[in-house]
Amino acid sequence: MAVNLPPPDPASLHRVAGVELGVAMAGIRKPERKDLLVVRLARGAAVAGVFTQNRFCAAPVVLARKHLRNGARALVVNTGNANAGTGEDGLKRAMQVCEALAAQLGCKPTQVLPFSTGVIMEPLPADRIIAGLPRALRDQADWRSAAEAIMTTDTVAKAASVKVRLSDGPATVTGIAKGAGMIRPDMATMLGFVATDARVRRERLSAMVRRVADRSFNCITVDGDTSTNDAFMLIASGVGPAASAAQDLQKLEQAVAEVACRLAQAIVRDAEGATKFVTVRVEGGRSRAECRRVAYAIAHSPLVKTAFFASDPNLGRILAAIGYSGVALDSAKVDLWIDDVLVAKRGSRNPGYREEQGIAAMKKPEFTVRTVLNRGKAQATVWTCDFSFDYVKINAEYRT
Amino acid sequence: MAVNLPPPDPASLHRVAGVELGVAMAGIRKPERKDLLVVRLARGAAVAGVFTQNRFCAAPVVLARKHLRNGARALVVNTGNANAGTGEDGLKRAMQVCEALAAQLGCKPTQVLPFSTGVIMEPLPADRIIAGLPRALRDQADWRSAAEAIMTTDTVAKAASVKVRLSDGPATVTGIAKGAGMIRPDMATMLGFVATDARVRRERLSAMVRRVADRSFNCITVDGDTSTNDAFMLIASGVGPAASAAQDLQKLEQAVAEVACRLAQAIVRDAEGATKFVTVRVEGGRSRAECRRVAYAIAHSPLVKTAFFASDPNLGRILAAIGYSGVALDSAKVDLWIDDVLVAKRGSRNPGYREEQGIAAMKKPEFTVRTVLNRGKAQATVWTCDFSFDYVKINAEYRT
Repeated sequence: MAVNLPPPDPASLHRVAGVELGVAMAGIRKPERKDLLVVRLARGAAVAGVFTQNRFCAAPVVLARKHLRNGARALVVNTGNANAGTGEDGLKRAMQVCEALAAQLGCKPTQVLPFSTGVIMEPLPADRIIAGLPRALRDQADWRSAAEAIMTTDTVAKAASVKVRLSDGPATVTGIAKGAGMIRPDMATMLGFVATDARVRRERLSAMVRRVADRSFNCITVDGDTSTNDAFMLIASGVGPAASAAQDLQKLEQAVAEVACRLAQAIVRDAEGATKFVTVRVEGGRSRAECRRVAYAIAHSPLVKTAFFASDPNLGRILAAIGYSGVALDSAKVDLWIDDVLVAKRGSRNPGYREEQGIAAMKKPEFTVRTVLNRGKAQATVWTCDFSFDYVKINAEYRT
Repeated sequence: MAVNLPPPDPASLHRVAGVELGVAMAGIRKPERKDLLVVRLARGAAVAGVFTQNRFCAAPVVLARKHLRNGARALVVNTGNANAGTGEDGLKRAMQVCEALAAQLGCKPTQVLPFSTGVIMEPLPADRIIAGLPRALRDQADWRSAAEAIMTTDTVAKAASVKVRLSDGPATVTGIAKGAGMIRPDMATMLGFVATDARVRRERLSAMVRRVADRSFNCITVDGDTSTNDAFMLIASGVGPAASAAQDLQKLEQAVAEVACRLAQAIVRDAEGATKFVTVRVEGGRSRAECRRVAYAIAHSPLVKTAFFASDPNLGRILAAIGYSGVALDSAKVDLWIDDVLVAKRGSRNPGYREEQGIAAMKKPEFTVRTVLNRGKAQATVWTCDFSFDYVKINAEYRT
């Protein structure tokens, strides 16, 4: 189902020195399935992250956010159960997992960051996770295997990797992500873990993770639902070259953004039921915020998304979404393009436009819907997908 | 497909003195289909209305809003073509229809209010509408026939009628509506026409139509899309009893609200692909606005709506939607009910709750999702439906 998303080639995923991975089948929800990932970090590694802004944030999010301050030594990620909407008991169980891992690593429980994804409002089977930890610590895994271990309704593992040359030497940036539904940006919007061996100061890393999230994971939407467990973590193990000069930091951020964008787009490509990958670009706005507002109105409209599915250039639905976005635009100034086809000009149908052109553009598995507001110089891009029978099928049947 | 929505019984739809109806098959988009409605008003009738707030409002909306000031003598409604996104040419064509009807009625073109619904961004076939007018003026129609003439993807005609005793004598309130998709409140959200024979001053009627819309058509959502053509018109022909005393106005408003609520709910019951009619009630908020915000987050979530379709009490999805509504609520204070089943208590799963209870409640074609925020005394109700395979099918195939 996934749109132009081959499984990651293990050879393309570079190891990150100072970051050890281990996975296990802990039987958390289903047997014979990788569902537990442990990420061990070199002493002195810096970790920064952004988390869901959902008021019902999950127990592991509460702990991970808190533990982030203590110099993290390990991350532990389970699928099958999100440990969300579980109150005090959920916090207790998440902490039990941190304690068990800390005991085996010889660090403090508050130096372990827990992450969970899966079914909401059911008690976390902490005992099964704890029982799986020794295996995850024993068997070294590669990044592809780690990506597989955090999948839920994903159909393809998501990983990306680049190398970047810093003045102190070459650095590696490798990351994984999971997510296929309940995706809507409002901080980071799924689980994403990107690691580099570069040495970066914590404050620099914190600023970097925010900027990168804002240009990658916060630019995607599948269904407009913000999960309770979203997190995007950026790890700098520090055993590689230093990134402290402005130029190096910029290069590194560029590499991290590239990996994060590929992961974010991979989530949309693998979105539940997706048959199209659509770039929604809005230009000529007064601010980036208003461009994003228009882009999200288009990207969230079920009518527009079903028209994408049908390869139906139903311009009226797109213009209607632009019109109700809440931006005080002048409809008589709006131009609308599908790829290089000008379909609406100054708010009305472009006289030269023939519907076959729109259909041809929308039949492709990837296309761009470009709206020009003609009221300013700002712009924004959002990546989304169509809305198919299978989205309903997957979400009506999940859990049952 | 419609949920508990039998076709209106013609015997239950009272005539409204001073309001003459006529319908015709004008072949606007499809042959052999009622697609044109003319409503003639007694001299001195008062008309008030609320219109879409979409920035791409359609040409007829622009004219109807303007002509409303001139003492309307007739309304003309066509289906098959929305005359939206059609620019200056659209305004010209809508005006041609007004002129043709005015010539036949002996009134001014600016005393005719035009309404259009159907496909967007295609030129209005004004010639066919004009050719159909004499037939619509010749053949008297009843309210059921009028309701049928304004249907698009509706599967059931929508009409409601009540009588109310005013101090000056008995008055009638009868209305019709259409709408099944692109439904999201932001003023009135579809076409709705409610008429009474009572005599009401224009300013009173204007205030009344706003209050009623706010409690009826502005409380429904199917897919969150606000149409370019929405309008809700309230007509007081004035040939019946006067409604000028405060008590009479209140009684009349109550009757109008009853008709409008039944029509609004009928739209949701007949929503594209709907298999469930769901009342989303939010209580204990600090303001009605924040209660509505939470209610719409639930009612718009595709994940929640597909769970409704599957009769799956996926509490996590509902709580997640509450959590991302943007209201600064305390998740540990939130209670959630499905009908009389307390499913989540103080933010976590109610220990006494068994999933069979939730499934049993959600298997019914109608149920209520009630959220108690426990932070204030305000409340709000929104009516919505589920999200089914057929919603995608209908919207992927419409037009093709």
